[in-house]
Amino acid sequence: MNIERRDFLSTLTLASAATLFSGNPLLASISPKKDKLGIALVGLGYYSTDLLAPALQLTEKCYLAGIVTGTPSKAENWKTKYNIPDKNIYNYQNFDQIANNPDIDIVYVVLPPSMHREFVVRAAKAGKHVFCEKPMAPSVADCEAMISACKSNKVKLAIGYRCQHDPNIQAYMQVAKDQKFGKVKMVTSAAGYVDNRTTHWKQNKKLGGGAMGDMGVYALQGARLATGEEPISVIAQASTTRPEIYKEVEETMMFMLEFPSGARASCQTSFGINMNYLQVNYEKGWLKMEPHSAYTGNKGSMSDGTIINVPLKSQQAKQMDEDCTAIMAGTDLIAPGEEGLRDIRVVEAIYKSVASGKSVKI
Amino acid sequence: MNIERRDFLSTLTLASAATLFSGNPLLASISPKKDKLGIALVGLGYYSTDLLAPALQLTEKCYLAGIVTGTPSKAENWKTKYNIPDKNIYNYQNFDQIANNPDIDIVYVVLPPSMHREFVVRAAKAGKHVFCEKPMAPSVADCEAMISACKSNKVKLAIGYRCQHDPNIQAYMQVAKDQKFGKVKMVTSAAGYVDNRTTHWKQNKKLGGGAMGDMGVYALQGARLATGEEPISVIAQASTTRPEIYKEVEETMMFMLEFPSGARASCQTSFGINMNYLQVNYEKGWLKMEPHSAYTGNKGSMSDGTIINVPLKSQQAKQMDEDCTAIMAGTDLIAPGEEGLRDIRVVEAIYKSVASGKSVKI
Repeated sequence: MNIERRDFLSTLTLASAATLFSGNPLLASISPKKDKLGIALVGLGYYSTDLLAPALQLTEKCYLAGIVTGTPSKAENWKTKYNIPDKNIYNYQNFDQIANNPDIDIVYVVLPPSMHREFVVRAAKAGKHVFCEKPMAPSVADCEAMISACKSNKVKLAIGYRCQHDPNIQAYMQVAKDQKFGKVKMVTSAAGYVDNRTTHWKQNKKLGGGAMGDMGVYALQGARLATGEEPISVIAQASTTRPEIYKEVEETMMFMLEFPSGARASCQTSFGINMNYLQVNYEKGWLKMEPHSAYTGNKGSMSDGTIINVPLKSQQAKQMDEDCTAIMAGTDLIAPGEEGLRDIRVVEAIYKSVASGKSVKI
Repeated sequence: MNIERRDFLSTLTLASAATLFSGNPLLASISPKKDKLGIALVGLGYYSTDLLAPALQLTEKCYLAGIVTGTPSKAENWKTKYNIPDKNIYNYQNFDQIANNPDIDIVYVVLPPSMHREFVVRAAKAGKHVFCEKPMAPSVADCEAMISACKSNKVKLAIGYRCQHDPNIQAYMQVAKDQKFGKVKMVTSAAGYVDNRTTHWKQNKKLGGGAMGDMGVYALQGARLATGEEPISVIAQASTTRPEIYKEVEETMMFMLEFPSGARASCQTSFGINMNYLQVNYEKGWLKMEPHSAYTGNKGSMSDGTIINVPLKSQQAKQMDEDCTAIMAGTDLIAPGEEGLRDIRVVEAIYKSVASGKSVKI
């Protein structure tokens, strides 16, 4: 039965849909009308533990229904802390059985980037909608495979881009859309922090590490979202000041982007520098954000005196609620897989530029 | 008679020096003790007219003593406005006779960059101290010839770098010197304005135009002065959004610098973008300036709450007074020819990088 939720719901009453789905394991992924969708977090590292799980206590359209982890002790802790039933706890081997679990509507992949493709595809095949953390994947080919798997399994794929859901980021995106100060001329965008770990996936190439994918996508998005355009060329330089730690991946990436309108951007990211700011110079004004891609407190100002400083309880809660609303309503996601792919297309070009030492067309 | 002023004054009383010089045209360039040194401006364009001449009404150590211009009507206007005696008015042909004019202690070259070398060398040969506007010259070879000519003629050469005399710029230079926030990690620096002229020397390659030399040296200095280091490599991209105007020279230049300490900088300059800011991220803090290289109002703040905002009547007056004080006292200039050369060495590497599309060692 291959009916997309959006078509399906438009042709059936909700009551009859709920009756139809009830008890049919093949249709478990297409949730009957629920007030809240059940999310299973895959990978219980820092981001799941400190950001997503707390956010899921604030969400209105979804809740923490299950977990997928390779570490039994974590499973035990989370089970107790969040009152998760045993039947909603999976490991990486039995994960595919999630297909038969009607409690789980969405699988949220929070693993190292190199594992995103495998688990997104497995979740899609299990008939579950998928949230996938950024960076979407190490390669464009991975991203395309993930998008394709979700499409053919009729499930939605949202990237965990919390920024696009933040009204402070939306405010500066709007400036570009409205051409409030005319065309964008120059963007500088920086996102970095000091990571002193040595054996995390962020320092490991095979696992998809490197400053570019982890923090660099924020610098890149600063430029993409501030211009509302996709870059057409990039020149980049990778460097490190701590070669003993950053052996396989870059500690710092600097890159310059060219956009179709003629706008230019200069972006920096690093695991060795605390920085988070965005500056946009338009034909007739400017906009500054600092921070521009933090978990909280993104704020800024514009040359006409406009202040950007919208209070926000939890980016992640808003992100998940809005993605769930879109899934329930069958409307477009704010940051679908295609948006993740746009970034990875540039990231791939950036690594090509580093390898060649020259500008690369995108 | 080859005596450097600094040695000379230290071995003679001022009274005897004044007596010795008096009436000897060969020694006219080595001024007897004066309260104020006489400056002759060479080239009476916008900068001389709107900035330097007004500043010379505020200076305490120098005054507008003469002019050198190829335009008789300008000579007439200036003569009346500033009460300049006919004997202190020169054109480009009879300029060398300035050697015999004891009123003129310093020749300030305010011509298009391509003419700097010729007039600095001629001024030096005339035995006059020289101030030379930025950019010092189109090439390293020119700069070296200018420094050499001044050295062999025992005259001082100061570059018209007003910023280094601004206490607001000195404040952030001091942060690097003191390592107040530890090592510099990342600098972003931008300096540009919208120039809508079409036939000015700034749009003319032969005359030494291009955004890089004119405004780019400020972006470059932002990085050099904020790190207190000289860059060891650069990768640059030139671009234009108005090819009909910027045919011969770049409208916009973006470049990324590497410094010996591992610090990195991302710099932008343009004749098509209003922008002027500097952001420095250190190991343990940050500093922001906006503007960072304007004629007035340079100001900023630091992560520890320090505000940089020292009132300053006239950068140019302070610059000329301090340079004259150094000349009279025989002490080091704040921005001698060697400082101008440091910038042009990078500018030359930037154009090489643009030509090759690759990183260039400096």
